[in-house]
Order: sequence, then C-alpha cells, then structure tokens
Amino acid sequence: MNVTTEQLFTEARTHNGFRAEPIPDATLRELYDLMKWGPTSANCSPARIVFVRTREAKERLLAGMSPGNVQKTREAPVTAVIGMDLAFPDKLPFLFPHADARAWFAGNEPLVEATAFRNSSLQAGYFIVAARALGLDCGPMSGFDPAIVDAAFWAGTRIRTNLVCNLGHGDPSKLFGRSPRLPFDEACRIE
Amino acid sequence: MNVTTEQLFTEARTHNGFRAEPIPDATLRELYDLMKWGPTSANCSPARIVFVRTREAKERLLAGMSPGNVQKTREAPVTAVIGMDLAFPDKLPFLFPHADARAWFAGNEPLVEATAFRNSSLQAGYFIVAARALGLDCGPMSGFDPAIVDAAFWAGTRIRTNLVCNLGHGDPSKLFGRSPRLPFDEACRIE
Repeated sequence: MNVTTEQLFTEARTHNGFRAEPIPDATLRELYDLMKWGPTSANCSPARIVFVRTREAKERLLAGMSPGNVQKTREAPVTAVIGMDLAFPDKLPFLFPHADARAWFAGNEPLVEATAFRNSSLQAGYFIVAARALGLDCGPMSGFDPAIVDAAFWAGTRIRTNLVCNLGHGDPSKLFGRSPRLPFDEACRIE
Repeated sequence: MNVTTEQLFTEARTHNGFRAEPIPDATLRELYDLMKWGPTSANCSPARIVFVRTREAKERLLAGMSPGNVQKTREAPVTAVIGMDLAFPDKLPFLFPHADARAWFAGNEPLVEATAFRNSSLQAGYFIVAARALGLDCGPMSGFDPAIVDAAFWAGTRIRTNLVCNLGHGDPSKLFGRSPRLPFDEACRIE
C-alpha cells in the first residue's frame, strides 16, 4: 500500500478532537496486521490491545483518564488501551522457536519488566505509524490512573497498561500549534 | 516522499548481515528529521543518538556487545546507540512552552525514569520505521552490557543506553526464517 512520509511523520499531528465517523472492525484488524510485524527483542511481542468502542467500555476507561484527557477520549470513535503482558515469556516457544528463550527470563522479574516495557513501547510506536498509514489520526496519552485502567481491562492477568491512544478522524480546528523539536546537533552526534 | 507499507512493515526484516556500502551523513540527518516528529508525552523527546561509524568508535561499542551481536555490529556501516536522557525535563521549557511541564517531574525520579524509558522506546520505534522509509535496513538489539556502552558514549551525562540498532543495506543471505506473530484474537480484543 502506498503512503507518504508526510502522512506518517512530517505532517502528522497529535489530535485533540475527533469527528464522529466510526472505524470498522476491519480497519482495526488491518492496523494490528501492520504493526505486529515491527521488530521486538526475541520477537517477544508483549503488547496487548483493547480497542474500546462501546459506550459502556468507554465509561469504564473514562473513569481512569486524567481530567484533561476525558473529553477527547469520549469523542474518539475508538480508544486503544495498549498494555504490556508480563507473562509474555509463556508465548516465546511459539514466537521464537529457534531457542529456549523462555528460560532467559525465568526468575528474572526485572528483566521481564524492562523487556515488556521497552518492547511494548516500541510496538506502540509501530501502532501509531501504522494507524497513520491507514489514514487514521492518533492521540496518544499517558495521563491516566493505571490502577483504574488495569482493573477495568486487564483484571486477572499480568497485563499492565502502558499507554492509551485515541483513534479516529481528527478535527483540525482543535489542533494546538505545533511544538518544536530538538535540532540534530542537540539530540545526535556522529562518531 | 512515497513509501509503501510493505517496505515499512509487512516485507521488512531484521537484518543480521550488512553490505559494506556506507551511509552518508545526509541520510542520518534525514532519518532524524523524520523520526523527531513522532509524538512523545508532553513532546519530551528524550531519545539521544550516537551514530557510530568510525573504526575507533565501533571498537568501543563492540567491547560492550553480547558475543552473538559482535560480528553483525562490526559489519554494519553505521550502528545507532539510542539512549534516553534522564535530564530531559531541562529541555521542556523549549519543547513544551505552553505550560511549566518541567515542574511535573521535579523531585519525582520514578516518573522521570518511566517517562524517559517509555518515550525513548516509542522514538526507537519511529527511528526503525523512518530508517526503512529511507531504504535502510535495521538490526535492533538489546543484547549488550549497558555499563560498558554507557561509559563509552554517555560519560558525564544522565543519558542511559536503551537499545542499539545496526543500519545499512542488509545481506539477504544472512536472514533467518521469519518468525510468526500472535493472531489478532490472541493479542487484541474489541469492546
């Protein structure tokens, strides 16, 4: 599928308001079927996603969002709760069949947590770019109460919410002015 | 610039061998100028990158790489050491001028660390996709000794290495078979 780097990066914006236009299931599946191919350490793929769409599920989510994130999350036709599964090693025999990768993590909870956090965040980056590739606008957020959101969507599992991302067709009238980025020489060097 | 989702996701592979063909400075700057636009929390943009290219800098890096990552890192024309700056709040008055975002982090080191880790990992995801958009192949790695790599590249700063990524033109003869991904219904649900 053809896309442009303008659509993915240079002209894409974080949206704060969304039109009511719904997102079909097929688009959410297409989004996962792109982002899932992004690389993770030992293919561990720890991200787990709830696409929150019904009014009832939205209300459970809104109870945990920071006040400044409530209205836009209510408006977005879909909000993705992106979690990290601390039980990811159990899927490694399927995901990384070449080696006993599950053994690398056994009894090493700090390594499990760092690997889940780093790689589910990488996958959230792929998710955002893939959504834009499909013509969706994103509004990623870390302003929420993890205890409330975890209880609402991941009860009885070892999944913890990493970030939350509104999805839809943005309302350009609600965009903020674009913030600057660090120049190359402040963020990078070549050695 | 036109790209395809095949190039970014569905046909892109993690490379384990690289051709000698060098990468010009202009391409590394172009890569940063794409990935820098990816969204981060309060635009905090904590990723810092050393593009390691000279033999001398490569040797310092190789001293910290896990044995299985040494040969491919030696071969790659450029290896990016992607760090997270725990001093990122000091740049918030420039990056997020609308509010006193620096104050949100003052005295809250766990929040600083989680924000730097999550957002520099998101940026690493943007980095990988942006590199592929420019026709480069990537080989991201977390197998290294952080103490050695940090001392080699970030001495005297609050930057810590998050991951390391080979860049170049991959050698398809050294690809492994592609590993499977979790099906939608195992990683996602719609509520």
